[in-house]
Amino acid sequence: MRVVIPVFEGLTVLDAIGPYEVLRMVPGAEVVFAADAAGPVRAHSGTPVLLPDALLADVDACDVLVVPGGPGARSRTRDAALSATLRRLSAGAEWTTSVCTGALLLGAAGLLTGLRATTHWSAVDQLEAYGATYTPERVVFQGRTVTAAGVSAGIDMALALVGRIAGRTRAEAIQLAIEYDPQPPFDAGSPAKAPQAAKDLLA
Amino acid sequence: MRVVIPVFEGLTVLDAIGPYEVLRMVPGAEVVFAADAAGPVRAHSGTPVLLPDALLADVDACDVLVVPGGPGARSRTRDAALSATLRRLSAGAEWTTSVCTGALLLGAAGLLTGLRATTHWSAVDQLEAYGATYTPERVVFQGRTVTAAGVSAGIDMALALVGRIAGRTRAEAIQLAIEYDPQPPFDAGSPAKAPQAAKDLLA
Repeated sequence: MRVVIPVFEGLTVLDAIGPYEVLRMVPGAEVVFAADAAGPVRAHSGTPVLLPDALLADVDACDVLVVPGGPGARSRTRDAALSATLRRLSAGAEWTTSVCTGALLLGAAGLLTGLRATTHWSAVDQLEAYGATYTPERVVFQGRTVTAAGVSAGIDMALALVGRIAGRTRAEAIQLAIEYDPQPPFDAGSPAKAPQAAKDLLA
Repeated sequence: MRVVIPVFEGLTVLDAIGPYEVLRMVPGAEVVFAADAAGPVRAHSGTPVLLPDALLADVDACDVLVVPGGPGARSRTRDAALSATLRRLSAGAEWTTSVCTGALLLGAAGLLTGLRATTHWSAVDQLEAYGATYTPERVVFQGRTVTAAGVSAGIDMALALVGRIAGRTRAEAIQLAIEYDPQPPFDAGSPAKAPQAAKDLLA
């Protein structure tokens, strides 16, 4: 099972690393971080810097495509070459997935048209502009297309995906391996739950 | 606020990236990924490859030290130079923290002696061999030393830490920004919850 994660300047690294840390543990999985140019890729906060394993142009196919988001994703929605690459990889993939505003890259590539989908809560209008119907769920399965909400939702998405690919027991084993027994100290993880004062800090 | 995250061959990347993605959003924070040798650092699964920002020897001080774990951490517990570096950085830091088996590196450096601490569920005996008292909690605060359980627990730890450093509202805003409203599709994130069949897959 080859998992390809496109990486690009300005990505939100947890979008990529959450699913990676889950999917890499599926027996036989190989995870490839691929960029559209050679050289290091810098996250939107400046660090960390990832060295991709491959050029996207050299990746002939994958079983699972995981598209992360981040401020860099929004600006790449107008990159026709990247959109074409995502369409090509998605066409051959068993599963096409996104995390956070990675959904905007799928949308810009025409891969969410007519589908229910989710994204980061701040990107709902842009998502719908691509012909998707925003669905305020943590993970949305639509046939072979799976979208996750913001950043940390990629972990939940990947576990659900492993359940489909390799069975519930394997997914549970991976959940145990990464000790994913979340106990957030606060309860502000969605716009519906966060107090106004916290929202104001992001405005 | 300077956050230093030591990185080393064979680390579990989510141990580092979970806290990073939270702490980087504290106003004024600078996160530095530092290694003890120049050049790329490979995760224990082979990918991804990180390019550190600095050499540990060149980091004169930090406010928050975050030590990740992974198979590579266990083997570095016998590295006296790394232990000395962790002691030096911890001595000047306001907060010394670990995720997963990063606690073994703190323990090997003598930084957990006589303290309650947590780590990945698979590393309890090694942790106690360093004179710490294992405490089966997700996050354990002991004065200025904070340990988190396995891998994904670093997110909870970092949010709790931001609550102490920058206040609850800031922590809630960051939780909202990373949409950390966890909804694991299964309930197998700890040895007490995981079914035996899942545990057997890890044995």
